[in-house]
Amino acid sequence: MKPPVCVVIGIGPGNGAALAHRFSKEGYAVALLSRSTGFSEKLAQEIGNARAYACDAGQPDAICTALAQVERDLGTPDVLVYNAGSGAWGNVEEVTEADLEGAWRLNVLGAFVAARALIPAMKKRGSGSIIFIGATASRRGGAGAAAFAQAKSAQRTLAESMARHLWPAGIHVALIVIDGVVDLPRSRTRMPDKPASFFVQPDGVAASAWWLSQQERSAWSFEVEARPFAEKW
Amino acid sequence: MKPPVCVVIGIGPGNGAALAHRFSKEGYAVALLSRSTGFSEKLAQEIGNARAYACDAGQPDAICTALAQVERDLGTPDVLVYNAGSGAWGNVEEVTEADLEGAWRLNVLGAFVAARALIPAMKKRGSGSIIFIGATASRRGGAGAAAFAQAKSAQRTLAESMARHLWPAGIHVALIVIDGVVDLPRSRTRMPDKPASFFVQPDGVAASAWWLSQQERSAWSFEVEARPFAEKW
Amino acid sequence: MKPPVCVVIGIGPGNGAALAHRFSKEGYAVALLSRSTGFSEKLAQEIGNARAYACDAGQPDAICTALAQVERDLGTPDVLVYNAGSGAWGNVEEVTEADLEGAWRLNVLGAFVAARALIPAMKKRGSGSIIFIGATASRRGGAGAAAFAQAKSAQRTLAESMARHLWPAGIHVALIVIDGVVDLPRSRTRMPDKPASFFVQPDGVAASAWWLSQQERSAWSFEVEARPFAEKW
Amino acid sequence: MKPPVCVVIGIGPGNGAALAHRFSKEGYAVALLSRSTGFSEKLAQEIGNARAYACDAGQPDAICTALAQVERDLGTPDVLVYNAGSGAWGNVEEVTEADLEGAWRLNVLGAFVAARALIPAMKKRGSGSIIFIGATASRRGGAGAAAFAQAKSAQRTLAESMARHLWPAGIHVALIVIDGVVDLPRSRTRMPDKPASFFVQPDGVAASAWWLSQQERSAWSFEVEARPFAEKW
Repeated sequence: MKPPVCVVIGIGPGNGAALAHRFSKEGYAVALLSRSTGFSEKLAQEIGNARAYACDAGQPDAICTALAQVERDLGTPDVLVYNAGSGAWGNVEEVTEADLEGAWRLNVLGAFVAARALIPAMKKRGSGSIIFIGATASRRGGAGAAAFAQAKSAQRTLAESMARHLWPAGIHVALIVIDGVVDLPRSRTRMPDKPASFFVQPDGVAASAWWLSQQERSAWSFEVEARPFAEKW
Repeated sequence: MKPPVCVVIGIGPGNGAALAHRFSKEGYAVALLSRSTGFSEKLAQEIGNARAYACDAGQPDAICTALAQVERDLGTPDVLVYNAGSGAWGNVEEVTEADLEGAWRLNVLGAFVAARALIPAMKKRGSGSIIFIGATASRRGGAGAAAFAQAKSAQRTLAESMARHLWPAGIHVALIVIDGVVDLPRSRTRMPDKPASFFVQPDGVAASAWWLSQQERSAWSFEVEARPFAEKW
Repeated sequence: MKPPVCVVIGIGPGNGAALAHRFSKEGYAVALLSRSTGFSEKLAQEIGNARAYACDAGQPDAICTALAQVERDLGTPDVLVYNAGSGAWGNVEEVTEADLEGAWRLNVLGAFVAARALIPAMKKRGSGSIIFIGATASRRGGAGAAAFAQAKSAQRTLAESMARHLWPAGIHVALIVIDGVVDLPRSRTRMPDKPASFFVQPDGVAASAWWLSQQERSAWSFEVEARPFAEKW
Repeated sequence: MKPPVCVVIGIGPGNGAALAHRFSKEGYAVALLSRSTGFSEKLAQEIGNARAYACDAGQPDAICTALAQVERDLGTPDVLVYNAGSGAWGNVEEVTEADLEGAWRLNVLGAFVAARALIPAMKKRGSGSIIFIGATASRRGGAGAAAFAQAKSAQRTLAESMARHLWPAGIHVALIVIDGVVDLPRSRTRMPDKPASFFVQPDGVAASAWWLSQQERSAWSFEVEARPFAEKW
């Protein structure tokens, strides 16, 4: 019997890797989509039941091509975790039109295209999970996040609209709001004075994504925070 | 070795019973606090590792007395789930001062008193979970919920204030917002035309409470919904 | 012809006085309700078309008695501004049950009782304004506002429930969220290093209350902030 | 002495016309920017102190060209009201990538470009108002508004980010959330059974925009609703 399939879009040493590890550990075949495959191919080998695909999540055609290949290689996906989504920092005077558009394409358009590619099969089976990885900026337009926050809040609202439409069809659309700084080597370098308790552990984020994908459908959650206990909020 | 202790305040055939079953199944000794013990004593016998206590959650002294007895009987609580919290329905012209005050005492004052009784020991150990069971009215002041919604939103805000203060001490304060009608015999009688998919299953609520109590502290959630997939929201 | 009547509950040298001045200037007879009348009687004399009433807003009977007297003295009120609403500061471990209850009685129960006394006549005429003066804590449960924030958010939700019920009857229920520190002698003393731009001017709050009372009913606002331009939010 | 200048982007028989009339009546020279000038030129003649400019708000270059011309013709703008912002309806399965992108360009990118063109002069003077006209979808991702709501909520968050950055410089960025159906001939045709009380009157929206532009800066509002008293919310 074929294992269930989980697609993670946006693979790096933080949440992406943790998500891949967790779903693999739980018995899923995992498709790893990321712009370059330098990291993801090593990760796929390490995990075992996983495969890396090159795919720029800001490019609709690239997403569609990669997801079609996933379907041929691993089967129809049961879970999509959309983890792509960086964005330029800067206030309204500092960011450019290209910053706004790039952030929007990566956080919103890519998420839309990926979801759209998987919805028909999920509807047919009456089940599936589509999980977006959000950020503090999903809820709040900080002065220094003019480009990033508009994109993240658009993503949150797209997820909300999708949830209202797709939940009744058995598809669990949900959002994890990471309200903190993910523990990555580059975060530690950038913030050398912060204690370990300051950071969000990717394994914790992956645990929430896993839990959301398993929730009983009479008591689904749409939006859950992933916030370190020591965070000031 | 003594099992960990979970206190559930507000015991009935819905969430209260499901919470008790779940935490018991996971190895906890469970204290069942409710106004009358008719139901809770039968439940305690059925579950095994549980004990019923009579306690009106709107009465601060009663809560304190009962929790002191729990401590002597079962040990220091690790988890508190505050599930008490009904309220009169009616718009601002229909409800009375007593309705407002009664709802407030049950949803806010009782929660405060119960939490206060357990915080010192939790702080000392640097761990513990305090979980409030909220409702749609925790977020929204509907026209017909003038007395209930003011109390539920006060409870949510109290929980938020507590979370900001207690998370850094290792105590996970969280809120489950039940956005739907819990599946109870009396709900079915009141809404005979609704399909099963319309209702929130208490087991789903209990699963979320359990999950919150186990979350890794670098990625805690404060507020999670429990909403049926078929709900209109 | 008798002038329209505005009742302001909660009179001090900040918002209360500014509200009284503004509505008086716009042609209203103004009733000034406050616990002690030392300040309000001088204010009434200064303003002219105003009268002071002693009334503890945490005491339902006192409010009813005072409002009945207002009706006899000045006529049926057209506008109610509920400005009472202090609260003790402190986190969940520092505040007492009495702090929670006192804050709730002043911010919620008093507002309910005052509104209830005026609603029947407003409904009869199909017009009227009921304006609550909120605070940052109306929206957010800060760690240090355990008693105050639960009361303020309950007040906001009560206002929301009232708005949903009373707007269709022509009664404009609204909330002004003061997101900053009101400029008062005691604020300046407490924060001697803050520049003038840090503070909310009571005249600005009064201008918003006045504007809300005059809004065209096809485009009513429920919640408006009063936040200094230099505020960090 | 030259009159102050107000730029309204997005001119039609509803809010656009009402905004133009109101600011003109208050002594402003009004620049009317819209894709086609059929309506706006007649409006400009009717109003008197106004001028029409052709400008597709989804095209950054077009906005910049038009605003440069406004500056030459009328002087430096004091107020910008960004009223452009329609969007395709449909759920996530019905809308297209082009619908998402079109809505985003019109509601977000155009607003960004217009604001950016005016910010430097406003900063120099330490005053100015930038007002966005939002919608119910600014706050809520309805199932049938997959393309529109992501754009409107991105616009709201961009406005919030701008407000946090620009308020301290004396520029009042604000958002009017129209929570209802604007009274237009085509709305009446589409909803023939609705009474007049169902609709938002454009004059009410214009009154709120005017009021926001005049608010005292110690008590600014960021977000205000324009909602008909008879609206169900």
